[in-house]
Amino acid sequence: MKRTKGVIIIGDGLADRPVAELDGRTPLEAADTPNMDRVAASGECGQMDPIGPGVRAGSDTSHLAILGYDPFKVYTGRGPFEAAGIGMEIRGGDICFRCNFSTLEGELKLEGDHFTGAKVTDRRAGRIAEGTRELIATVNGMVIEDVTCYAKESVEHRAALVLRGPGLGSKVSDVDPHDEGKPPHAATGEDDESRKAARIVNEFVLRSWQALKDHPVNQARIAAGKHPGNILLPRGAGVAPHLEPFEKRYGIKGACVVETGLIAGIGRYLNMTVPEVKGATGGADTDELALARAIIEMLADHDFVLCNFKAPDLGGHDSKPQAKIAAAQKMDNLVGYVLEHIPAGTHIAITADHSTPISFGDHTGDTVPIATCGPNVRPDSVRSFGERAVVGGAICRIRGFDLMKVMTNLMGVQEKFGA
Amino acid sequence: MKRTKGVIIIGDGLADRPVAELDGRTPLEAADTPNMDRVAASGECGQMDPIGPGVRAGSDTSHLAILGYDPFKVYTGRGPFEAAGIGMEIRGGDICFRCNFSTLEGELKLEGDHFTGAKVTDRRAGRIAEGTRELIATVNGMVIEDVTCYAKESVEHRAALVLRGPGLGSKVSDVDPHDEGKPPHAATGEDDESRKAARIVNEFVLRSWQALKDHPVNQARIAAGKHPGNILLPRGAGVAPHLEPFEKRYGIKGACVVETGLIAGIGRYLNMTVPEVKGATGGADTDELALARAIIEMLADHDFVLCNFKAPDLGGHDSKPQAKIAAAQKMDNLVGYVLEHIPAGTHIAITADHSTPISFGDHTGDTVPIATCGPNVRPDSVRSFGERAVVGGAICRIRGFDLMKVMTNLMGVQEKFGA
Repeated sequence: MKRTKGVIIIGDGLADRPVAELDGRTPLEAADTPNMDRVAASGECGQMDPIGPGVRAGSDTSHLAILGYDPFKVYTGRGPFEAAGIGMEIRGGDICFRCNFSTLEGELKLEGDHFTGAKVTDRRAGRIAEGTRELIATVNGMVIEDVTCYAKESVEHRAALVLRGPGLGSKVSDVDPHDEGKPPHAATGEDDESRKAARIVNEFVLRSWQALKDHPVNQARIAAGKHPGNILLPRGAGVAPHLEPFEKRYGIKGACVVETGLIAGIGRYLNMTVPEVKGATGGADTDELALARAIIEMLADHDFVLCNFKAPDLGGHDSKPQAKIAAAQKMDNLVGYVLEHIPAGTHIAITADHSTPISFGDHTGDTVPIATCGPNVRPDSVRSFGERAVVGGAICRIRGFDLMKVMTNLMGVQEKFGA
Repeated sequence: MKRTKGVIIIGDGLADRPVAELDGRTPLEAADTPNMDRVAASGECGQMDPIGPGVRAGSDTSHLAILGYDPFKVYTGRGPFEAAGIGMEIRGGDICFRCNFSTLEGELKLEGDHFTGAKVTDRRAGRIAEGTRELIATVNGMVIEDVTCYAKESVEHRAALVLRGPGLGSKVSDVDPHDEGKPPHAATGEDDESRKAARIVNEFVLRSWQALKDHPVNQARIAAGKHPGNILLPRGAGVAPHLEPFEKRYGIKGACVVETGLIAGIGRYLNMTVPEVKGATGGADTDELALARAIIEMLADHDFVLCNFKAPDLGGHDSKPQAKIAAAQKMDNLVGYVLEHIPAGTHIAITADHSTPISFGDHTGDTVPIATCGPNVRPDSVRSFGERAVVGGAICRIRGFDLMKVMTNLMGVQEKFGA
């Protein structure tokens, strides 16, 4: 009945289809991955459908499934996770929007159901990157009726807006007109609760312009011949789902060692520890050993770590086989460090969150390979880690949603269902 | 991001169990099927549970599942699909019945809850085959209360009745007494809405007798010593399910190249194109190349074609191994023509809708083999197409309900779920 620790290492978009210039091999098959092969050879292998057979998974829906939260039931869009990813504290029921800092010309008025008197001249405010924290501070925490409006800057011109209060709906249209030369669209709601949210959003947009138009950051930008970020334009409304925290669901402490805001947001949303990892850039140049060290550090006082390694996905989206091979080899390096430094008896799974084939340049619904190792597995005959090498392994074909059950079973930390 | 076309070719009842007189091989294993072997050798193979492991599928429930409509949620009986299959336009909520033209002797009366004064002397009206169209014309479109009654002839003595109107239920007992020498059973309903439908049906039956008893077609039959088709006896009430049309669900245009009314009805029900195929008899003598040519013709302006080839099922139901081997070889001929003539890059799946084992003479819930090929698959080590040859292939074991996700993923036409 000994408990062990567990690690899932996910190569983002790692799986692929045969590539002609690799003689019909996939990048993972073509890559030199001795450490991942060691996991496969010493453990149980198979295929995984991140969501379900043939289903094209996003990274967010796939990570939710892999962490044991059924995306068909809980996923309401990327908004809440992106907001959590930039450090906002999100609660179930919050209404979340993505925003742009934009440039408005004219004197904005809200007349009945319409914005008038001004038009959006640059949706990205000259790709404003500096001063957004100061700008956002003037609007964050605004209270309109019985609703509090939280806003936070993200990278460049991007930001998030979160409404918290009673009786709010999320069927709210975009204020962002999506075209320049037009006034902002006044938001409308499809039902009573959404109409309330729309009313709050419109008032927030008007007041954000009033607060930002003469802000010193914008005065300085205008003086320097740059477009001011003088208005926030929300879009993509979504209600934050009520998700049981990871520790409550599994009775173990979990951490996410990840590189992208979206996946960090999922971790934070589930109250998992999400450490800052210096050197983890989310790019091809990332320091994979920094991620590996962070995994080991987290294992000191956590039972479980999920790691997402972003680089393979980039090679897939860019349709660059050599970049994807290099990324697979970096991931192998990461796995090698972890294998050497983990506490004895730790169970490891290596897999992908979806395929991003070179030939397609976007996510597909193909299966991804999975290998698990540790003292409690029953090693099978598979000897290397690859899309086709794992076929015939003991895992056969499981779903992402099954994986936490598989892991907590191996780790000896799962409650028995029944007597 | 290239889109491709897709074809699923289904051998009806093709899968089987070991047959002693074939030295323990199945008919498919014993058959010479070089073209289906070519699909298997160049693609991904595995097993499929048409509905679920061990579930004995009908052809209708299986085709619904394979087209991505969960039969456990939407199936209400074969009635609505048979009605659609004979060319009736069915809407969700319609109450559908199968009917027989029967022969009634006496003077029918509806007294309270019972039919009296007459009895059914021939449930099939001498297997009447001619004149049914003229007979049905006299009752089709009858309006009773606020309900319209649509009736249409099928083959021989068979017909369909459809009630359309507000507040109708489908828990309605059969009017057909199922035995000769008895009066028709007055229909009863289990709830208020079904009681309304029962009242309408009983009135329809009475009026159909009044309209048919002296019809010239029947007068001529009586003069010729034949049993008249002087009453319609409904049975098997079912409500037509609300099914999202195929094109709306998948965003692609689909066609069904099929031989039987039931499967044609499913295709029509989903607003798919269902061409008439000259030479497709649904029997052992069918022109399989006519079906193959129809697939190619449909691909000219459709993205997807499902083909059902009926002959293997007949060999199974008749427990004739050689007939089933011959049918499998005809199917192979069909597949060969398709392979030679399809647009380059088309993805193909070959499979069965259920097993109809020689030894059982009816459908069983065994797995069926499946093979997929096309540019986006990852070829595995399977080299031929058969119940056992596909074991160990990359597909492992999927459900019929998964297949359209698998196909639309390979075809590059599926929306991504998530970010």
